[in-house]
Amino acid sequence: MEKIVSLCKRRGFIFQSSEIYGGLNGFWDFGPLGVELKRNLKDFWWRRNVRERDDMVGMDGSIIMNRAVWKASGHEETFSDPMVDCKSCKARHRADQLPEKDGTKYCPNCGSRDLTEPRAFNLMFKSYAGPLESDDNLVYLRPETAQAMFVQFRNVLDTSRQKLPFGIAQIGKAFRNEINPRNYIFRSREFEQMEIEYFCRAEDGLALTDYWLEQRLKFYEDIGIPRDKIHVVDIPDGERAFYSKKTYDLEYEFPFGVSELEGIAYRTDYDLSRHIEASGKPLEYHDQEKNEKFVPHVVEPSAGVDRTTLALLCEAFDEETVTDENGKSEVRTVLRFHPRMAPIKVGIFPLLKNKPELVAKAKEVVAKLRPHMAVSYDEAGAIGRRYRRQDEAGTPFCVTVDFDTVGENGPEKADTVTLRHRDSMQQERVSIDELLPRLAAAIL
Amino acid sequence: MEKIVSLCKRRGFIFQSSEIYGGLNGFWDFGPLGVELKRNLKDFWWRRNVRERDDMVGMDGSIIMNRAVWKASGHEETFSDPMVDCKSCKARHRADQLPEKDGTKYCPNCGSRDLTEPRAFNLMFKSYAGPLESDDNLVYLRPETAQAMFVQFRNVLDTSRQKLPFGIAQIGKAFRNEINPRNYIFRSREFEQMEIEYFCRAEDGLALTDYWLEQRLKFYEDIGIPRDKIHVVDIPDGERAFYSKKTYDLEYEFPFGVSELEGIAYRTDYDLSRHIEASGKPLEYHDQEKNEKFVPHVVEPSAGVDRTTLALLCEAFDEETVTDENGKSEVRTVLRFHPRMAPIKVGIFPLLKNKPELVAKAKEVVAKLRPHMAVSYDEAGAIGRRYRRQDEAGTPFCVTVDFDTVGENGPEKADTVTLRHRDSMQQERVSIDELLPRLAAAIL
Ligand SMILES: [Zn+2]
Ligand SMILES: [Zn+2]
Repeated sequence: MEKIVSLCKRRGFIFQSSEIYGGLNGFWDFGPLGVELKRNLKDFWWRRNVRERDDMVGMDGSIIMNRAVWKASGHEETFSDPMVDCKSCKARHRADQLPEKDGTKYCPNCGSRDLTEPRAFNLMFKSYAGPLESDDNLVYLRPETAQAMFVQFRNVLDTSRQKLPFGIAQIGKAFRNEINPRNYIFRSREFEQMEIEYFCRAEDGLALTDYWLEQRLKFYEDIGIPRDKIHVVDIPDGERAFYSKKTYDLEYEFPFGVSELEGIAYRTDYDLSRHIEASGKPLEYHDQEKNEKFVPHVVEPSAGVDRTTLALLCEAFDEETVTDENGKSEVRTVLRFHPRMAPIKVGIFPLLKNKPELVAKAKEVVAKLRPHMAVSYDEAGAIGRRYRRQDEAGTPFCVTVDFDTVGENGPEKADTVTLRHRDSMQQERVSIDELLPRLAAAIL
Repeated sequence: MEKIVSLCKRRGFIFQSSEIYGGLNGFWDFGPLGVELKRNLKDFWWRRNVRERDDMVGMDGSIIMNRAVWKASGHEETFSDPMVDCKSCKARHRADQLPEKDGTKYCPNCGSRDLTEPRAFNLMFKSYAGPLESDDNLVYLRPETAQAMFVQFRNVLDTSRQKLPFGIAQIGKAFRNEINPRNYIFRSREFEQMEIEYFCRAEDGLALTDYWLEQRLKFYEDIGIPRDKIHVVDIPDGERAFYSKKTYDLEYEFPFGVSELEGIAYRTDYDLSRHIEASGKPLEYHDQEKNEKFVPHVVEPSAGVDRTTLALLCEAFDEETVTDENGKSEVRTVLRFHPRMAPIKVGIFPLLKNKPELVAKAKEVVAKLRPHMAVSYDEAGAIGRRYRRQDEAGTPFCVTVDFDTVGENGPEKADTVTLRHRDSMQQERVSIDELLPRLAAAIL
């Protein structure tokens, strides 16, 4: 894990938020490569789950919503951890994480055993919208994106011409005031979710939960996380939320332990019913053909952007010993991202930077590919060094423009380039015209 | 404007946040079509400004940053509006918006003239990160994305191999506790920004400000907002921020008045200098060739996602009287989006929904196009109605699969479809194989 964190910092995937001011516990920034990796993940999720499906629409709700939403959902009352205060040093701790000595709990800060009784500490960030810090103006930062999709169910239904079963999908930030943020970007206070609420008839709920399990496993496979790396946990009776009839946790083997990537929960009609009760608004579904009116059930596949990004980094990270042309061996660090996830798709190099005809030709190739994919132009240093830099960034392809390309060794080799593959380090000669269709197909 | 707001609600572009609970003043949700429009805008901005440039990298910083950032930037001290409290009814008002009667100001709520002196009201949303609501744990929701790019300047410079001039680009949410949110999504409390910090040498600052003005005008043209609809205001001496040597405001003719879309400010070395002073960290640039060390200057083109989305909707909205085949005239509502901005790129229709061979063929066309663009399949109602629905959504192309397509009228017409153009309503016959390249080129 240390190696991954260090590579992520060194190559600009992830920085501590506000690092020059000592950081801020539980908050992270994504640097130039990290933001592209995350964009690729979110875009592909959107494509698979929204654009490629007739039965799904997207939305983008506000982070701050009316407080009534969180009263109705139960978050205001129950979304909390148990906390105790140390009466001696005033520090606050999670009750279930206190150390114990001689059978009694004590403050890990000052050693005092004079602690308050555990009290519920709500994990939602509070703020005030409007000029007064009054109870009327109290708002929360959403702790999940899901509620917006329940609250807007009626509007989406009325404007999108969808019929059951259909889903609403959303990607966005959420916030939880974790007492103990940990494991790098795995558990942070500000994070991003990719959530689906898939509405259906009660009788289809269980089967659709299994359907979504399969879809989601396929998704992880399609971004380079193989099925056998994901543990599917069927949460047993009694351990699920009381309203859920079925819940699967999808866990990944992170270096710090097997931990949750995604939850797929069949939530029955709990959420819509709560909002019908609290708002008094008709969120029922009207089946015109059967002339039936009922509250739809829902299956919720809820994935974390940051967690999946971290899984992609862990899965891709590799070190191998390679031997160069001169027989010297060295350690190659390589991120073996699936080409559709790679932040940079292709590195393009002129063999020598002081030959204007090579530079000009390389820039021509850049201009050809750039409207279609993320390209990195690099003319600095030996070709071997440039390959290594791209390996560390996880770039699946490199293209070198040499004297053959510009026709110095005869017309039959003109307009061909060396295409180098990241994983095998194999090189092949291809024509410039072939590049776009080949690379575009590989990254689609 | 009312017509646009009504269309946006009816077709699922924009909803009030938490509408079933009475909404929340200053917060909006984007529905199925709105989220796609906004995605297209943000993706194209990213492509033009990050992916297609060698001298720009992206990042994605956290919304909540260390409070020290906002002390250093000056936001904690000065990012405020003057407010007065009514001593009689306790309401709070903006001092510069109080009504006046007989030369004295009074409370618009209760009519009392017993008001406090104006006091500064900070527009940043406050919260607490960590278990205690202590001064140490006080945090703000960022009121702009810009500061993250200054604070991470060193990290980006060290990891990205960029040399001056170069830029950092970011898209993300920001929050301002506006006393008086207004004009639909134009001035809301939660909004999204697309910001660039373009770092340079002092001597290049003024020329680069003009360069970016030109780039940004070109961008608006490329998304369908013509140059002559944008008013460029060169902010005169004395009205700019004291540290700015040049500022352009780009204003658009909204139905509610000419209002700011984007600001392009040459901010000199103000921001980096403030953070150097406050953090004690070396954010200077070291020019190795010239052996010089200095604080870079910066040009900041800062655009609003929501404002630009609203401008796209206003610019696209049109109503025209058309006459159908039977000579009946009706009003056609059409959103004339640039094809690259349109939420749906193509509607695909089988001529009749009860002919399985037409349905199957139409779905084949859907499957062909869908990996590359947003497609809407629609089989309900008369073709004319389906065209009108797509016109209202701003879909630039419609494809109809008919009996010719499935070969019922001879092999020479087989595998051709009707391609209908939104703006001209012209129809032409094209082969299915032509569709992808033609549409892909139009939306790129
Ligand atoms: Zn203590
Ligand atoms: Zn009053």
